[in-house]
Amino acid sequence: MTLRILKGHIVQTPSFGALDIAENAFLVTENGKTVGIFNALPDRFGDGEIVDCGDRLIMPSFADTHFHAPQYPMLGMGMDLPLLDWLNTYTFKTEYEFKDKDFAREVYKRLAAELIANGTTRVCVFSSLHREATIVLFEEFEKAGLTGYAGKVNMDRNSGELLTETTEESEKETLRWLDEVSDFRRIKPVLTPRFTPTCSDRLMAFLGRLAKERDLPVQSHLSENTSEIAWVRELHPDCSQYWESYAKFGLFNDKTMMAHCVYSDERERKALKDNGVWVSHCPDSNVNLISGTAPVRRMIDDGVKVTLGSDIAGGAQLEMYRVVTAAIRASKIKRIETDWNDAFLTVAEAFWLGTAAAAPFFGAKGGFAAGEPLHAIVVDDASLPPPARRLSVIERFERLPYLMTKDNIVAVYSDGKKVK
Amino acid sequence: MTLRILKGHIVQTPSFGALDIAENAFLVTENGKTVGIFNALPDRFGDGEIVDCGDRLIMPSFADTHFHAPQYPMLGMGMDLPLLDWLNTYTFKTEYEFKDKDFAREVYKRLAAELIANGTTRVCVFSSLHREATIVLFEEFEKAGLTGYAGKVNMDRNSGELLTETTEESEKETLRWLDEVSDFRRIKPVLTPRFTPTCSDRLMAFLGRLAKERDLPVQSHLSENTSEIAWVRELHPDCSQYWESYAKFGLFNDKTMMAHCVYSDERERKALKDNGVWVSHCPDSNVNLISGTAPVRRMIDDGVKVTLGSDIAGGAQLEMYRVVTAAIRASKIKRIETDWNDAFLTVAEAFWLGTAAAAPFFGAKGGFAAGEPLHAIVVDDASLPPPARRLSVIERFERLPYLMTKDNIVAVYSDGKKVK
Repeated sequence: MTLRILKGHIVQTPSFGALDIAENAFLVTENGKTVGIFNALPDRFGDGEIVDCGDRLIMPSFADTHFHAPQYPMLGMGMDLPLLDWLNTYTFKTEYEFKDKDFAREVYKRLAAELIANGTTRVCVFSSLHREATIVLFEEFEKAGLTGYAGKVNMDRNSGELLTETTEESEKETLRWLDEVSDFRRIKPVLTPRFTPTCSDRLMAFLGRLAKERDLPVQSHLSENTSEIAWVRELHPDCSQYWESYAKFGLFNDKTMMAHCVYSDERERKALKDNGVWVSHCPDSNVNLISGTAPVRRMIDDGVKVTLGSDIAGGAQLEMYRVVTAAIRASKIKRIETDWNDAFLTVAEAFWLGTAAAAPFFGAKGGFAAGEPLHAIVVDDASLPPPARRLSVIERFERLPYLMTKDNIVAVYSDGKKVK
Repeated sequence: MTLRILKGHIVQTPSFGALDIAENAFLVTENGKTVGIFNALPDRFGDGEIVDCGDRLIMPSFADTHFHAPQYPMLGMGMDLPLLDWLNTYTFKTEYEFKDKDFAREVYKRLAAELIANGTTRVCVFSSLHREATIVLFEEFEKAGLTGYAGKVNMDRNSGELLTETTEESEKETLRWLDEVSDFRRIKPVLTPRFTPTCSDRLMAFLGRLAKERDLPVQSHLSENTSEIAWVRELHPDCSQYWESYAKFGLFNDKTMMAHCVYSDERERKALKDNGVWVSHCPDSNVNLISGTAPVRRMIDDGVKVTLGSDIAGGAQLEMYRVVTAAIRASKIKRIETDWNDAFLTVAEAFWLGTAAAAPFFGAKGGFAAGEPLHAIVVDDASLPPPARRLSVIERFERLPYLMTKDNIVAVYSDGKKVK
């Protein structure tokens, strides 16, 4: 039994709108799992190793619930192009390079290190369609200390010359990939139909059966932009809305993470809620690709389970604290668009979206709940602009998403282990 | 005569939409002024000191045409508050602290260093109403190598208890401040009525006369949000639009920098154009304070002289390369709002806004024009994500505003001198 005790200012957002602060308090962990938070250290923990974080902030680490790992090499590029040109000029060509395992290892090793350095410890991530590169992703992400889900992409139509696989190949490679990753402990497989237009009915049906038989999670894209929605309507005239093209194959339930949902109207939001589907809101990507402004606050108010995704490389920032501010900005844009009717997201609310909100998707309780493996960052804000007076811990917390960089993140704990 | 020659990939945006690239070229300067750009070094410059920047990019440095220096201590704070609460809880209290010269020196020294570190070399900046702290600002900014305009703020009504000055004080202190800064070479005074609601008619008339007599530039705020516009309408029932409350006092001409112009309609945009008034578009601030989305691309198309401002601390980012991306995002939001009718800003167009567009306001030609003092940054992008193939210089340039940090800026030249 290993007792480790972090001492410092403990800040967390355990539920939407809540902001719990314990100053100069003790976060006790036993074998990497949280025991509790104490203002004074109980005698029974007297033997523990105390990590004194001094005046620093101890906060939950981030969860990035939607991004494309093989698009990391093109981060910040092609932002002047319309979506289809962007896909053809950059995205498909870049993902194609992951046929090369060595290139994949170089990129995924670097990406994993950047994620950890920036305080992201939970991920739900798209690989490319390449089985071997996907195994490399599992290896490098797990080695770096990341946890969560990663998926080999399935795409057997409408995908251009470079990236199409046949339905048979897609099925076979998926099964082989699942066999090959069965021993990973922290990164687990998630079935990943790229999106409805790139997956035949037969492939979708196969994935739906597989999800059910093996109790696997699913990730895909939903209602990101208007032309995509029109395309799905053409492909599935039997579906009155986009989400039904997933639902009819058993790919729309409480283990499903759907990215974007920019154009999910009241009916689609109700379907998301009723089916317990998770939404990954990707505010930076939605602006960069001129997709639209997602009704993020409205979705939350409607009871949809919303989380945050960097969506690199549609998003240009993998730093989830910056995605937190992008979500705030998206909600403020929506407030302007609705003539100041829709509420905006506060810093605490958006921080919750980027941390605790996603924990149940990963089978955990949010924040520093007792019994949960520790997922935390320690932040030193001494290098930030000198304030006019002594700031409260709340104020220090509130400016972090806007101002911090990875240099301020002095320690990262993932699944109970110190990984930075 | 000192010849200094920078060798590297020279990238500039000399006019709206233009992107000039000279790879492995020579930027020749004589006594700090640009002579020209050469693909091969002419013999007559054979004696010059060559600064070999290798594979790095040599680009124009940034101009920040609107920000509040005394709000730097509250950067990123109070973002959940409505504008008036934000002003009363943070802004006025923070600016009040600049009654203390020592505090002012600590903040302005730090701010000046951050601006230079991030590649900003030209500024048009608000101080507080305090004359002494404003002198400190001149001293610290000039010492750090910044150039441009700074102004003691005038505000003799509607400013709360902490910051109001009487009209007499405001006039007297302004004249004394102008005397005291007459010897500064690189930072010059700009008259700074805070905005119409905080300046009496008498004070505005005084400032208008002073601007004319001494040929001084002017900076203020215009049409930032709807309640402010309604307030000005009440205060100046004789003015059919906000801009007229400046124009009638001689504070609206080609030496005037007006921040925001979020709600400038066709008529106000025409007034801006016809009077040669400069606009400082502050996209980050406009979202944070839920002001609205300025029609930035529309203003440019209408022939208005648009530049970029960080507007800290309504803006939460003093890094002008990030404000460049915020301007792109604002233009994309406007494109969404106009049902994809308004064009968005490309990276090159927005980079121009943050660099060359503002040069004439500072009495210079944009970019690396011959005869102009060198304002440049040297950028090392080797630490950015590893691309899938060798990138062109255009691609390297395009991802910089999204990805670079001050760590990538390895050298800064301001007014011909190396300042970082």
